Amino acid sequence: MTSAEHELGLPRNFAKAVPDGDTIIRDVCETCGFVAYQNPKVVVGAVIHREDKVILCRRAIEPRAGFWTVPAGYLEVGETVAEGTMREAREEAGATTIIENVLAIYTIPHVAQVHIMHVARLDPPQIHAGPESLEVKLFEWDQIPWSELAFPSVRWALMHFKMVKGRRTFPVFTSPPPG
Amino acid sequence: MTSAEHELGLPRNFAKAVPDGDTIIRDVCETCGFVAYQNPKVVVGAVIHREDKVILCRRAIEPRAGFWTVPAGYLEVGETVAEGTMREAREEAGATTIIENVLAIYTIPHVAQVHIMHVARLDPPQIHAGPESLEVKLFEWDQIPWSELAFPSVRWALMHFKMVKGRRTFPVFTSPPPG
Repeated sequence: MTSAEHELGLPRNFAKAVPDGDTIIRDVCETCGFVAYQNPKVVVGAVIHREDKVILCRRAIEPRAGFWTVPAGYLEVGETVAEGTMREAREEAGATTIIENVLAIYTIPHVAQVHIMHVARLDPPQIHAGPESLEVKLFEWDQIPWSELAFPSVRWALMHFKMVKGRRTFPVFTSPPPG
Repeated sequence: MTSAEHELGLPRNFAKAVPDGDTIIRDVCETCGFVAYQNPKVVVGAVIHREDKVILCRRAIEPRAGFWTVPAGYLEVGETVAEGTMREAREEAGATTIIENVLAIYTIPHVAQVHIMHVARLDPPQIHAGPESLEVKLFEWDQIPWSELAFPSVRWALMHFKMVKGRRTFPVFTSPPPG
């Protein structure tokens, strides 16, 4: 059976093995040799601002339904990091954005994710909740619902945004140390 | 059959379908509902410098065996972007590195890769070729074998490094437009 036949829907027959030239145990198909590499996934998103306010979306879906997040989601095959970031802003917040900077690259090892977060400007000012959001709002800084944020990385992104607001260049932030 | 049983090595039975709440056709196991999402993979690497020289490795493996590259490779589950970058430098060039900056985030859509490239300093100065390299060398800028570089992204990273050399902060570069 060839890899192409698997693509037609025939089952793969995975066993644990270290592929030739590798050092890590992977899922390898015993029929065709296909290796199902598990690698971290890329999440792309942005702190989107307009007139000193930032966009947050209240999540309609698990995990953390009902909690607030910045627009972000998995990068898809065939799109650039910038395109994925703008797509998520459109899908989750109905927002048209201009990407200004890369803000941070956070690694979240326990969920095998790399978050590439941007600073983006909302233009024009219209927003609306997409199917994955219960509501979407532009928040003044002191109105941000800090205790109802969905993930630590949302808080990191907002704090890092605040630190460099208005600056054209700055070093890209990374995940704060645990604790 | 449950997803846990698949982990024990029983075959999955994939068919093409759009999962609930999704908009894209995925490989879905008809037995247990497992979705084999295909997402872009993260390549981490660095332009590693010491005393106005940069490290290049001549590839021992395909693709582009015999051509020169900067140390870079797939990020693995459980490591941070910085850890993966330092691991690749160690594996491919025998290099101990101090990461100084994020240089660029290149999206290569046709191979579904996101390259996160850094500027790093070699310290101490020792290098040696790892199993994936035929040789490894510190090149003066005007000795770089431009016509024998393995990938366009290697040239981009070197040129972008040259543009910001010695600067502490700069905006992160992205892929140049095609052509």
